[in-house]
Amino acid sequence: MQAYLDNSATTPLCESAKQWIRRAAEQDWGNPSSLHAVGLDAETLLDDCRAAVAKALRCKEKELLFTSGGTEANNLALFGAAYALQKSGSRILVSAVEHPSVMKAADQLAREGFGVRRIPVDRFGVVAVKDVEALLDDKTILVSVMAVNNELGAIEPVEEIAALLKQKRSHALFHVDAVQAFGKLPLSPQKLGCDLLTVSAHKIHGPKGAGALWIKPGVTIRPRTFGGEQQNGLRPGTEPTLAIAGFAGAATQIAPKRHLARVTALRDGFVAALRQLPDVVVNSGDDALPYIINFALPRHPAEVVLNFLSDRGVYVSSGSACAKGHRSPVLAAAGLDPAVVASSLRVSLSDTTTEEELTYCLDGIQAALDTIRRKG
Amino acid sequence: MQAYLDNSATTPLCESAKQWIRRAAEQDWGNPSSLHAVGLDAETLLDDCRAAVAKALRCKEKELLFTSGGTEANNLALFGAAYALQKSGSRILVSAVEHPSVMKAADQLAREGFGVRRIPVDRFGVVAVKDVEALLDDKTILVSVMAVNNELGAIEPVEEIAALLKQKRSHALFHVDAVQAFGKLPLSPQKLGCDLLTVSAHKIHGPKGAGALWIKPGVTIRPRTFGGEQQNGLRPGTEPTLAIAGFAGAATQIAPKRHLARVTALRDGFVAALRQLPDVVVNSGDDALPYIINFALPRHPAEVVLNFLSDRGVYVSSGSACAKGHRSPVLAAAGLDPAVVASSLRVSLSDTTTEEELTYCLDGIQAALDTIRRKG
Repeated sequence: MQAYLDNSATTPLCESAKQWIRRAAEQDWGNPSSLHAVGLDAETLLDDCRAAVAKALRCKEKELLFTSGGTEANNLALFGAAYALQKSGSRILVSAVEHPSVMKAADQLAREGFGVRRIPVDRFGVVAVKDVEALLDDKTILVSVMAVNNELGAIEPVEEIAALLKQKRSHALFHVDAVQAFGKLPLSPQKLGCDLLTVSAHKIHGPKGAGALWIKPGVTIRPRTFGGEQQNGLRPGTEPTLAIAGFAGAATQIAPKRHLARVTALRDGFVAALRQLPDVVVNSGDDALPYIINFALPRHPAEVVLNFLSDRGVYVSSGSACAKGHRSPVLAAAGLDPAVVASSLRVSLSDTTTEEELTYCLDGIQAALDTIRRKG
Repeated sequence: MQAYLDNSATTPLCESAKQWIRRAAEQDWGNPSSLHAVGLDAETLLDDCRAAVAKALRCKEKELLFTSGGTEANNLALFGAAYALQKSGSRILVSAVEHPSVMKAADQLAREGFGVRRIPVDRFGVVAVKDVEALLDDKTILVSVMAVNNELGAIEPVEEIAALLKQKRSHALFHVDAVQAFGKLPLSPQKLGCDLLTVSAHKIHGPKGAGALWIKPGVTIRPRTFGGEQQNGLRPGTEPTLAIAGFAGAATQIAPKRHLARVTALRDGFVAALRQLPDVVVNSGDDALPYIINFALPRHPAEVVLNFLSDRGVYVSSGSACAKGHRSPVLAAAGLDPAVVASSLRVSLSDTTTEEELTYCLDGIQAALDTIRRKG
């Protein structure tokens, strides 16, 4: 038996994604910018992809910019917004638990002279709206808070932050990294009230190599890449049709509302069983996204347990994949003890995760506790 | 019958590319940064891909940075080099016929205060080394000249420019956009003598969405994207394994020396036949890369002929795909008359192009001349 429980790192392709990829690979393989029939077929494919992703995001096609993934979309949002508004101020607010592609882009903007402030989080990684309010000033040009944290599953109060910015008549643009929320929570950027929103294909059973930045109509950001006329010059480069097609194929399959109750029940059962194990610390909040469960087995280094589980066919992560095993700044920002951070694991679910897989994972954790303790 | 003769815009996937893509889609679909076995399998795939592309470029694996394509690699080369050396000077030299992803990146650097100078070209789009020498000064930090021009097929004297920079003991970095040369001319960046070199997958029967920047050992450039630890942080973001695998699969198939004589003979026959048609102007030089043939049918707007041919299953381009039919600045830089530019077409070949396809294309051109003339 195997249990792949690292779905927040990446997911296998769903059948729909594979089918759309085949269309891009076999049938509509042309360059969408070419003016002949082969190019027009590829352009039609691209239009169909844009329509599929737009439908999943409940937005209009023209509001979507395809990127090479979440990292590029987040970078484009931060640099693009900061440069567009730099004459109006220099303050940028980012939550203390953002993904590195937001955090390190903000660090770079700080090196370039922007005044970057981090919004603190509570024990479960959740931002308080009053802290945003306290940091917000007239010179704030950009606020970036993710919809769901990738390590703790914390659901951030993004609608409330959007409402605050509106109430304060702030001219700041509001960017939401929704990579971990997309497909798991009902999501409508227009309803949410943000200006920019990032999604990615490979967290929803699409391929690595495609993402999108939603841009609210009327909002102007600066391009980060320069080149041809593709995507109105705002994101030039021949569109990666295979990856975009896979993104679209996966997007047609998302159904957050259909799965949420079942996944919540799975999570609740898993956490209840975890809590029966000795010394386990559950880092994720009870009201976190049920797809992400972060917990620590104190005195058991995460990497040792991760490898033990991997040998049994149970695949979980320590920290996020992007950090390649480095200590998690997210857990540190949540105020967790370094010893807890060093022994923390993340189990992340998909719509397709079964109770059997979670039981097999729990068996593995129990075996790890028995075995590794005996060794120690 | 059909004749796809727009291979400089994009190419269909070869069987090897499809086979490698299947491996990435079905078997090694994990996140290469994940520490468990599923991640390690994906990392092994990525290592295999890097080895395959490195072998094709006759370089070491660690010298290759994967990007989302040629546009990103060119942007990274220009911004990364300019920012890395900005304390040593501000002059940047680019040929007047660079791809928009170099030209417009240079335009942006000019807006940021860098002194960008364009190296002129002759009637066939070829740079003269003496013109580089005349523009080169102590404050020059970057020279970017493509190996082969994408519209005219002009082969640029990149080895001679590298020798000039060495002879002048210039501290300028030398970037070569080799997107159109890769797979068609023998290419070794180390032997060529440049510091940075761009290649792309979808011009060699790989997928759109993958490219690479070769960086000479010891050369440091600044990152353009900020995020996770992937590719040493110089190009973060989860690697697009499907596209990179397809890139690798295609790279294993290139064999420039095997095809050059045959393609040259095809080109020579095609050009000889073209010259027998009334009023045809061949824009490409006789010593251009034989894969690219640019010519004008004066008094016949390129788009009209392109559509006429497309209806018969002959696919050629007017200008480059990236420009989406806009007037070509490359042909203008080569000093061609606007009337010639407006009626210019590009026929671009692949290793797989047959004599029958070119004959069918010539028949189509003859029919276009007959039909459209009658209409006029």
